[in-house]
Amino acid sequence: MNDFGKIFNFTTFGESHGKAIGVVIDGVPAGLNIDEEFIQKEMDRRKPGQNQYATQRKEADKVEILSGVFEGISTGTPISMVIFNTNQKSRDYNNIKDIFRPGHADFTYFNKYGIRDYRGGGRSSARETAARVAAGAIAKLILNQLNIQIESGVIEIAGIRAEEENFEFAKKSEIFALDKDKEQIWKDAIIQAKKSHDSLGGSVKVKIKNLPIGLGEPIYYKLDNILASAMISINAVKGIMIGNPKAHQLNGSKNNDEIIKDGFVSNNAGGILGGISDGEDVEFEIYFKPTPSIFKSQKTIDIYDNEIDFKLEGRHDPIVAIRGSVVAEAMSACVIVDMLLLNMTRTMGNILRVYP
Amino acid sequence: MNDFGKIFNFTTFGESHGKAIGVVIDGVPAGLNIDEEFIQKEMDRRKPGQNQYATQRKEADKVEILSGVFEGISTGTPISMVIFNTNQKSRDYNNIKDIFRPGHADFTYFNKYGIRDYRGGGRSSARETAARVAAGAIAKLILNQLNIQIESGVIEIAGIRAEEENFEFAKKSEIFALDKDKEQIWKDAIIQAKKSHDSLGGSVKVKIKNLPIGLGEPIYYKLDNILASAMISINAVKGIMIGNPKAHQLNGSKNNDEIIKDGFVSNNAGGILGGISDGEDVEFEIYFKPTPSIFKSQKTIDIYDNEIDFKLEGRHDPIVAIRGSVVAEAMSACVIVDMLLLNMTRTMGNILRVYP
Amino acid sequence: MNDFGKIFNFTTFGESHGKAIGVVIDGVPAGLNIDEEFIQKEMDRRKPGQNQYATQRKEADKVEILSGVFEGISTGTPISMVIFNTNQKSRDYNNIKDIFRPGHADFTYFNKYGIRDYRGGGRSSARETAARVAAGAIAKLILNQLNIQIESGVIEIAGIRAEEENFEFAKKSEIFALDKDKEQIWKDAIIQAKKSHDSLGGSVKVKIKNLPIGLGEPIYYKLDNILASAMISINAVKGIMIGNPKAHQLNGSKNNDEIIKDGFVSNNAGGILGGISDGEDVEFEIYFKPTPSIFKSQKTIDIYDNEIDFKLEGRHDPIVAIRGSVVAEAMSACVIVDMLLLNMTRTMGNILRVYP
Amino acid sequence: MNDFGKIFNFTTFGESHGKAIGVVIDGVPAGLNIDEEFIQKEMDRRKPGQNQYATQRKEADKVEILSGVFEGISTGTPISMVIFNTNQKSRDYNNIKDIFRPGHADFTYFNKYGIRDYRGGGRSSARETAARVAAGAIAKLILNQLNIQIESGVIEIAGIRAEEENFEFAKKSEIFALDKDKEQIWKDAIIQAKKSHDSLGGSVKVKIKNLPIGLGEPIYYKLDNILASAMISINAVKGIMIGNPKAHQLNGSKNNDEIIKDGFVSNNAGGILGGISDGEDVEFEIYFKPTPSIFKSQKTIDIYDNEIDFKLEGRHDPIVAIRGSVVAEAMSACVIVDMLLLNMTRTMGNILRVYP
Repeated sequence: MNDFGKIFNFTTFGESHGKAIGVVIDGVPAGLNIDEEFIQKEMDRRKPGQNQYATQRKEADKVEILSGVFEGISTGTPISMVIFNTNQKSRDYNNIKDIFRPGHADFTYFNKYGIRDYRGGGRSSARETAARVAAGAIAKLILNQLNIQIESGVIEIAGIRAEEENFEFAKKSEIFALDKDKEQIWKDAIIQAKKSHDSLGGSVKVKIKNLPIGLGEPIYYKLDNILASAMISINAVKGIMIGNPKAHQLNGSKNNDEIIKDGFVSNNAGGILGGISDGEDVEFEIYFKPTPSIFKSQKTIDIYDNEIDFKLEGRHDPIVAIRGSVVAEAMSACVIVDMLLLNMTRTMGNILRVYP
Repeated sequence: MNDFGKIFNFTTFGESHGKAIGVVIDGVPAGLNIDEEFIQKEMDRRKPGQNQYATQRKEADKVEILSGVFEGISTGTPISMVIFNTNQKSRDYNNIKDIFRPGHADFTYFNKYGIRDYRGGGRSSARETAARVAAGAIAKLILNQLNIQIESGVIEIAGIRAEEENFEFAKKSEIFALDKDKEQIWKDAIIQAKKSHDSLGGSVKVKIKNLPIGLGEPIYYKLDNILASAMISINAVKGIMIGNPKAHQLNGSKNNDEIIKDGFVSNNAGGILGGISDGEDVEFEIYFKPTPSIFKSQKTIDIYDNEIDFKLEGRHDPIVAIRGSVVAEAMSACVIVDMLLLNMTRTMGNILRVYP
Repeated sequence: MNDFGKIFNFTTFGESHGKAIGVVIDGVPAGLNIDEEFIQKEMDRRKPGQNQYATQRKEADKVEILSGVFEGISTGTPISMVIFNTNQKSRDYNNIKDIFRPGHADFTYFNKYGIRDYRGGGRSSARETAARVAAGAIAKLILNQLNIQIESGVIEIAGIRAEEENFEFAKKSEIFALDKDKEQIWKDAIIQAKKSHDSLGGSVKVKIKNLPIGLGEPIYYKLDNILASAMISINAVKGIMIGNPKAHQLNGSKNNDEIIKDGFVSNNAGGILGGISDGEDVEFEIYFKPTPSIFKSQKTIDIYDNEIDFKLEGRHDPIVAIRGSVVAEAMSACVIVDMLLLNMTRTMGNILRVYP
Repeated sequence: MNDFGKIFNFTTFGESHGKAIGVVIDGVPAGLNIDEEFIQKEMDRRKPGQNQYATQRKEADKVEILSGVFEGISTGTPISMVIFNTNQKSRDYNNIKDIFRPGHADFTYFNKYGIRDYRGGGRSSARETAARVAAGAIAKLILNQLNIQIESGVIEIAGIRAEEENFEFAKKSEIFALDKDKEQIWKDAIIQAKKSHDSLGGSVKVKIKNLPIGLGEPIYYKLDNILASAMISINAVKGIMIGNPKAHQLNGSKNNDEIIKDGFVSNNAGGILGGISDGEDVEFEIYFKPTPSIFKSQKTIDIYDNEIDFKLEGRHDPIVAIRGSVVAEAMSACVIVDMLLLNMTRTMGNILRVYP
């Protein structure tokens, strides 16, 4: 259950403070130019420690490819990538060893498995998402060949919503802000939360452009329900809205996207009808809860059922939505590639195109 | 991709106006008392034609069990259930044969597959969800043995939100309303939409009670991401929020659920931490777009790319969220059973309990 | 676990003496002409009661398609086929209700599940294989489009091995004999076994012609290991040899197939190298144990652990290898189609061919 | 398709002469004592270069655990193990760069993927099986807790068959010989083949002892068809016979295993009835083709379709069946653990035992 995807299928492994984290991608088509520089650039976008709006923890997040690539080209065999943890001995975790941090998975992991690697959250740490970004980078290399683009940006922080969706601006913004005018307001809110030893939630918008019509496999592997599965599997993501996030409050006559020769007149559907891409941009929003790691005193219990007033220490993101947007892009890329591959097999026409 | 679940795995088949729809459930544990009356009651909750807030189409939705049950008890072999379509010849679909109805899957199915069964939406019709309810009924029979309950109700219609969550009331309400005081207002809004030849969206809340701690398989088969996948696979569902739907607008200190000996002090997490059930009620909301079938004129095209002003006829739900809530319960039940079965295999302790 | 295949995936259901058996095939490409007459002909090849070398039990084995086909063409949605059991009340099974028939699955089903449908073996009956033949017929319709043929025939009965492999003769032989000269000898051996109230084993050869190079997904979904899985899943099949069944007794210099411009000089490999089809005919043999249903007295126990001398009654195949060869063809066809579909997704070249 | 198993699921990666090979095992139950010494011992049993009956290539095959284990105990998260290739630059592969070695997968990999890592066979090399042995070692640690044992040994070489099955002797034999009296004869045959620049095939017997009744998931995930899939996925294995390898030549009255209070009187079925373990030892034989790497001149072609007389150089096993038996044990262990875990979920009784 640590894998994702049917044909383009990746498995991640590793704990926050173990030797390494990594990913094995099965199903990468042969003949793909594996641009390692591109992969590393994707990793760097998610990397911690780059500015004051993210955790100050430093990780090189250097990807090492162990298999599946020969002379720079994918061979069709599993691509394994490892990221050795260089920062794993930086501190002592004895103080949280027996304690369930509120808002974290400590309580549930311990009760499910009877054991947990308490160092930095172990497997439940968002550190795992670095492996997803590596997988997503490979997926993006495939999408690049088909001229499919995935963009993302922060659309809401502290209840203040963007009024524009400027994905070009977001690419250069330290906080991946979609709205130029809101960027400073949001930054201030983040600094303010930090000062109060608190944290913030936020929302991210993802847009996928230039998709062919036909991606998505009804009924239970639709484009939208698998995107939802992918997104909500990301640490701290608690919700998703496909297309117009207010659709459920509209009338049908307002929400239906009329169709003309040139395509759809509007895109309330978010580019997906009946679970299948309709040729419009695929658009959705995801919602991140605030970072559970805060530096205020909170009530909790330990593994011996003692009640405790607990105050966390360490370095943590004041808001996970920002770096989380890179993970959302990566997961989206993996979903789209999987859907592209599955869709190839769905008509006799395609079969006869490949086996003429 | 017409199946769902890893161990408790069901596959549905059938088109709206074909001979039959049905489901095959693989992985039902042996030794379960298969109460056919209970299954039919679940079917009847979803059945169309029961009042003026739903479509006037009539379907008996009589389930016939073809396999997997012997002398009233499950044998561990696949349980196949068929519902013959009794209403499929009731009208002529020639008028929509070549036309893509706005907001429907006609356009995408035709472009993906090169062919579509245009009668009532074919496979993309919500009629398919009857098969899910049959599967969910079997799942509920298992949950009943463990005293796990699933409840649901409508929490918002026409932008008017419930102020109470009265699941007992919802059970008896014709529109499954969670709020006694809002029921009539919502009913009026529905009648109003019908009169305007239009439709409404709405939101549904699901609550799962008495779950053991430990359900959910990180990292990609978490309880929440699979619930999300299950929900968004339901026709017209465009979004989901797990736990407090405003969590992304809160500070961490407000959102974190503190822990005391007796359990969690609050439940913003919606009963799930790190993708694993924490012993609190699992709670989430889902968002249905308005029924795309409306009786107003809309712009669309046909399969020959001609632009058309199109006005639908027939009988349709003015709002799908109501009957959709029954489907949401069914899908939730299937997810929970699958997670229960998977979780059994996760510790040496359990293994030695079964193989002493 | 009652399903088979990754993309072309079918699920069977039903018990020998239940209401019906059937199959749901997910992943049939859209645009395939569904020739119902062809399907029924395939069913008829396996059908019991056709001559004295098979059981005298009569079953019409009439297939009814419930979904997935519109105006004679596959739509890309699941094709469900049902075969109602017409013969299920023909006798009383009370005499074997509590008894474990030697060589049958009664003992293991009862001990695994704690319950069993004892009527005719229930789910463990070879009756289930009729559903496989229906699935295989759909697969063959796809293979026909690509000019891929699957042939089979009996190669050994009673320790007497064929000296020729005449697949054309086998098609017309009542016992699907590959060797014209051995046919009568084998028939005599079968009649002799019947007279002695006993049964026979036998071996079947399958040949798949005109496969493209490249089918099979290393390392764990190779063409050969999946064929092996498919074959040994057939009732009474206890073994398989891919290619030359004596390869393990040869030297490398004798066994290796040399390669020239025109292809391979020999075919000891059975058309598969490294788990991937090499363009030669795929060839393998499978080995059926003798029918466990015999009419001699045997020692067994009942569910109360009483020791019994048991003598079976009823109508049974004196040898299952004959009708089993039709099932082997069907399973082979399903495997090949699945491999064809998977292989489409394995190179960037193919991807760019489908998404130009 | 580089993974195996449903619940105890492992994925292998890596090429013969790449940086590393490895495995990620998902689904290892938490609370298992991970004895690294035991794992290494299992690796050493398969390791090349240990005597004159195996290749002289040296590989340390040192396993490094990267994840999933905390303070010596499995945590329920994926266990990743890597074996860095230390020997990968030992020679120049330019001479075989463009040539398809007869009996190898060079031809099929190149034609399937359009590219191949020609160094030592790349992914198709039996070096990949080291990763399986690592996975199998974890599986065996689980089986040890349940007192289930897996044994294996060589039962035939050069057409000379063992007359005894002495698994204790095999454990100490350099060639894992099951027959004390045949050991020297077999050794001589191997040396003789080496001297002739040729190779040998052989057969291996596997026995699994002390299994509970009930393992195996009909109809398509039976114990026997999945063991067959596992075995035939091993490099050079071309066949398998479950139970008595002559069953297909027997009469039913001879082949059926009668049942008495104490169990089965004989074990022609090989411990499996209807695809489910019956409590007797599970027994099967597998058949290895001779090593395709021989040092005699053979006809082949290169990637430009030139015909060539080709003579291989290097160090290779004169017979792969010997070291292959260790791989067969490992794969068997993985299958059994998966079946144990699946079987836990199959009855309401077990469910109520885990969730009381």
